[in-house]
Amino acid sequence: MRNIKITLEYDGSSFYGFQKQPKHLTIQEAFEKSLSKLLNKKTKIQAASGRTDTGVHAEGQVVNFHTDSKIAVKKIQKGLNALLPKEIAVIDAKVVADKFHSRYSAKSKVYEYKIWNSEVRSPLLSKTIWHFPTPINISKVKQGIKLFKGRHDFKAFSGSGGSQKTSVRTLKRFTVKKEGEMLIIRVEADGFLYHMVRNLVGTLMDLGTGKMTLPELRIALKSKDRRNAGRTAPAQGLRLVSVKY
Amino acid sequence: MRNIKITLEYDGSSFYGFQKQPKHLTIQEAFEKSLSKLLNKKTKIQAASGRTDTGVHAEGQVVNFHTDSKIAVKKIQKGLNALLPKEIAVIDAKVVADKFHSRYSAKSKVYEYKIWNSEVRSPLLSKTIWHFPTPINISKVKQGIKLFKGRHDFKAFSGSGGSQKTSVRTLKRFTVKKEGEMLIIRVEADGFLYHMVRNLVGTLMDLGTGKMTLPELRIALKSKDRRNAGRTAPAQGLRLVSVKY
Repeated sequence: MRNIKITLEYDGSSFYGFQKQPKHLTIQEAFEKSLSKLLNKKTKIQAASGRTDTGVHAEGQVVNFHTDSKIAVKKIQKGLNALLPKEIAVIDAKVVADKFHSRYSAKSKVYEYKIWNSEVRSPLLSKTIWHFPTPINISKVKQGIKLFKGRHDFKAFSGSGGSQKTSVRTLKRFTVKKEGEMLIIRVEADGFLYHMVRNLVGTLMDLGTGKMTLPELRIALKSKDRRNAGRTAPAQGLRLVSVKY
Repeated sequence: MRNIKITLEYDGSSFYGFQKQPKHLTIQEAFEKSLSKLLNKKTKIQAASGRTDTGVHAEGQVVNFHTDSKIAVKKIQKGLNALLPKEIAVIDAKVVADKFHSRYSAKSKVYEYKIWNSEVRSPLLSKTIWHFPTPINISKVKQGIKLFKGRHDFKAFSGSGGSQKTSVRTLKRFTVKKEGEMLIIRVEADGFLYHMVRNLVGTLMDLGTGKMTLPELRIALKSKDRRNAGRTAPAQGLRLVSVKY
């Protein structure tokens, strides 16, 4: 048996998120269907680095599966790319140690969130941005980021769908940069709670527009109560960039 | 009567090009419909800087129209953006001299063409790139570009749908750059023939992959015969960037 590590890029627009579910098409289902067809044997992934929500994109989602197939790994990549829907692509495939687990072996994950901060929408970018017409005070956003960085209990920034034992996470890197009318927020952590990036970004926008103050944000974080934090940023601006092992 | 100059961004994917036609939805039709609704009076554009083909995008298409409406130009922009389909946006609107004509006043137009030169497709970029898996020799592409630059009769690079009196055009700037796996070709000219950018790009790709040689390209240009030039690059990689007046 070989253990194969697969890196996926996908446009999440037309899928109901990553994780398999009964009624809707998900990335996992599309992937396992193509994989089983290629290997001529029902094959499931062992895990994915994380479960992206409906509409969230990835340029470096990692999954792994075990197989007794002898097909060369380069051919597995090519074969999958021929079978997968055009919205999903295998951008890398390699054989890894048997104990490698795409979820539990992950040291950190990097997400990026794009905000189009202009009065006018951008049709050419609409699929991968949050169009946010209100002017944002970027130095306030930076103050919020500074407060979030490091090890905290992020319970107040967790959606209700999560099942994690602890809500303590460490944000290793957290940055914002402005490129023309685009704000790019990038965050790296040892793990993320359900909806956490979108809740952090939404709250930062509330801070940047004056809807929330820095003391309120400090209280929200301490309170561990979702109701004290800001809004949830929409899915389509979010992208899982990479997973570090 | 005021003469209003409008700059449009659009995602051309779901339109049958710019120019109005009987059976299919075009950018022009969508725009004139919204405009007439806003001004409460049937209003047509005088012209557009150029007619982009089916599937071609724009981030700086320019149109103009005359109106006796008193609505402030900022409000015309806002109103149009509220009425237009989400794939089209008015990114600028201003009052210009009465003699301004978005087509005849244009000094030059800038187009950009993006080629994703990688074995693996990119789902997140697919809408605005040509996925070209064969390796491209960029120095050969540069030789071709050098040959094309300047004033020539580009008849061999014109599609059969054109109606222009002369096929002589001046390519003022023509560049290629590589950013990771992306090739970006940018061309500025006093005007373009029907399908000209796509035919130039397709021919450059034939040159870059060795399907055509530089002497063959020189002969093709001189022959003024479309059959001697290379292939037509697909529409979705092309974008009208700006129009200079």
